Amino acid sequence: MNKRKILVPLGDKSYEVTLEAGILNNISEELLKIGITKNRKILVISNEEISNLYGEKFLNNLKDNKFQAKMVLIKAGESYKNLKTLSEIYDVAFEFGLDRNSIIIALGGGIVGDVSGFAAATWLRGIEYIQIPTTLLSMVDSSVGGKTGVNHPKGKNLIGAFNQPKAVFIDPETLKSLPKREFSAGMAEVIKYGVIRDKELFKYLEIEKNKNELINLKNEYLIKIINSSIKTKSHIVSQDEHENGVRAILNYGHSFGHVIENLCGYGKFLHGEAISIGMNIAGKIAIEKGLWSKEELERQKILLESYDLPTEIPKINKEDVLTILMGDKKVRDGKMRFILPKEIGAVDIYDDVEDSLFLKFFS
Amino acid sequence: MNKRKILVPLGDKSYEVTLEAGILNNISEELLKIGITKNRKILVISNEEISNLYGEKFLNNLKDNKFQAKMVLIKAGESYKNLKTLSEIYDVAFEFGLDRNSIIIALGGGIVGDVSGFAAATWLRGIEYIQIPTTLLSMVDSSVGGKTGVNHPKGKNLIGAFNQPKAVFIDPETLKSLPKREFSAGMAEVIKYGVIRDKELFKYLEIEKNKNELINLKNEYLIKIINSSIKTKSHIVSQDEHENGVRAILNYGHSFGHVIENLCGYGKFLHGEAISIGMNIAGKIAIEKGLWSKEELERQKILLESYDLPTEIPKINKEDVLTILMGDKKVRDGKMRFILPKEIGAVDIYDDVEDSLFLKFFS
Repeated sequence: MNKRKILVPLGDKSYEVTLEAGILNNISEELLKIGITKNRKILVISNEEISNLYGEKFLNNLKDNKFQAKMVLIKAGESYKNLKTLSEIYDVAFEFGLDRNSIIIALGGGIVGDVSGFAAATWLRGIEYIQIPTTLLSMVDSSVGGKTGVNHPKGKNLIGAFNQPKAVFIDPETLKSLPKREFSAGMAEVIKYGVIRDKELFKYLEIEKNKNELINLKNEYLIKIINSSIKTKSHIVSQDEHENGVRAILNYGHSFGHVIENLCGYGKFLHGEAISIGMNIAGKIAIEKGLWSKEELERQKILLESYDLPTEIPKINKEDVLTILMGDKKVRDGKMRFILPKEIGAVDIYDDVEDSLFLKFFS
Repeated sequence: MNKRKILVPLGDKSYEVTLEAGILNNISEELLKIGITKNRKILVISNEEISNLYGEKFLNNLKDNKFQAKMVLIKAGESYKNLKTLSEIYDVAFEFGLDRNSIIIALGGGIVGDVSGFAAATWLRGIEYIQIPTTLLSMVDSSVGGKTGVNHPKGKNLIGAFNQPKAVFIDPETLKSLPKREFSAGMAEVIKYGVIRDKELFKYLEIEKNKNELINLKNEYLIKIINSSIKTKSHIVSQDEHENGVRAILNYGHSFGHVIENLCGYGKFLHGEAISIGMNIAGKIAIEKGLWSKEELERQKILLESYDLPTEIPKINKEDVLTILMGDKKVRDGKMRFILPKEIGAVDIYDDVEDSLFLKFFS
């Protein structure tokens, strides 16, 4: 079966993720299926690169089917994920006459998705939106779960909202135009799901044949791992939408990932690459605390590296590490919380990690 | 009894409005009662005028009780209810170290409340906040119901979120420092509740003695009408939080009110004054459609005027009226919807009002 559907069960905010090669070419049909009627205005938010690849065809498909659609492009890059870009979207929304019954579609990677979802959360106090992620990272992570927002000059994602999409459509075909390095970065999050909850996925990724087929972007294999990743994410998010508890485990590798992104300058490492290094650090801490086995830490390292991900910790000043960690919004009541593995497929949340325990890994 | 509590029943978002003269002097006690522990940071958002009157005492009460509190002032006036002011609040939030467990308190009128509620909705994807309205308008209207947001250069409240407060505290004593004209403007919303749902309140307001006591700001009388107003609002909001149906009746008088605010220049009429004129226009349309009696329209006019509110329609170009009405976000699928009275205490929503029917009232 080439089409997969994954339910994200969140009461009256539940929605489905539809995963199918080529789905982008039949977008109007999919919209009609989920009850988007043709009298509703659609604002498609994308960026130049994605728009050059799929924009015209996508928009034409909507217009040929009598949808009243318009596309607005935002600049690519983390530095444009800010209030100014949001403000530009509001201007277009006003000019286009986006009303309470209209809908926003995010067509692009994580930045497009996050900004679009937040625009939808806040235009006229909230209108519906749909995620169509085009990068591996956004397919397995940000497009599902409703975290939306923009950056504050002092920190990533400080401004935002929990806002679940009405639907998510994923077309693995779009990965064929994704730079190899970004594909690898997305694999870091896939491997993360393996470590935190899905031993079978981890083992699947270790198998040489699967690895080759994935790197060659075979749809069947891509669908398998995307499906598994989203299933895990859906399961966790449905238990704890607003990250008051278990959802935090999705941040495995992220605290140190943010440290690395911040201190090495945004852009040196891609998000997924920083997460890969962060997972390695978290693993080392777990060893120090006697939680995990060295053999499994080594398996994690080998798997990350086999998908061309970095694991070596860059040179970073210890004091800077502490400053960033303390400023991280995952701190609660002044206590730093870390997600540490106990075995492949199981992690837990710890707030009793001594600074000295992780600072030794930095120079 | 001098203390009133009104429940706003919204499932796990339910909260209480506490109404008591002098409650501002015991704010720490009230916070502790609703479970705000002293380790939580509190950012108080206010404006200069309110801060000059109550700010120091308020902050000292918090600090004397070992709360970690800070106050930030925003500029008064509709033109500062924008993304830039919001951005300044985010900067203070960052510097103060506002975390997920922190809380925002809005101390002031409707603008302070709307901006604060939206800041709370969007800082770290949402933290808790408390409304302490200090104007009659915000006590009976904007502090309850969770509508928060800022203006877009092209229109009021286009950017925002539904975000219910954790609690609302109302101290009628603060009305003693409110300019007479603003008190009257607030009375327009109180009278509105009479017309849309509460015939008893309407009759109460008509009684000469009550009117005099209200104008003299007698707490007992103020508490009576604020309590009645909030009860009606609470009842309606709990049926339809996101204004997909019945909540729209709270906008009685507002469509034409917005037209008047827009076209006469913001500032010429206060919001409540524009609503008063809007209610008179809505009443006239109801007469034209044969829904309402001329006697009751006259009673509405006399009541509004007896609280020093304007009812006469200013000179406005017909075409401009249409432009503003069509741009109003209450338009759904291109249809204009009007709230029209059938009798004092009962209104309904109509989407079949011919343009000619109301344009005749404009010159």
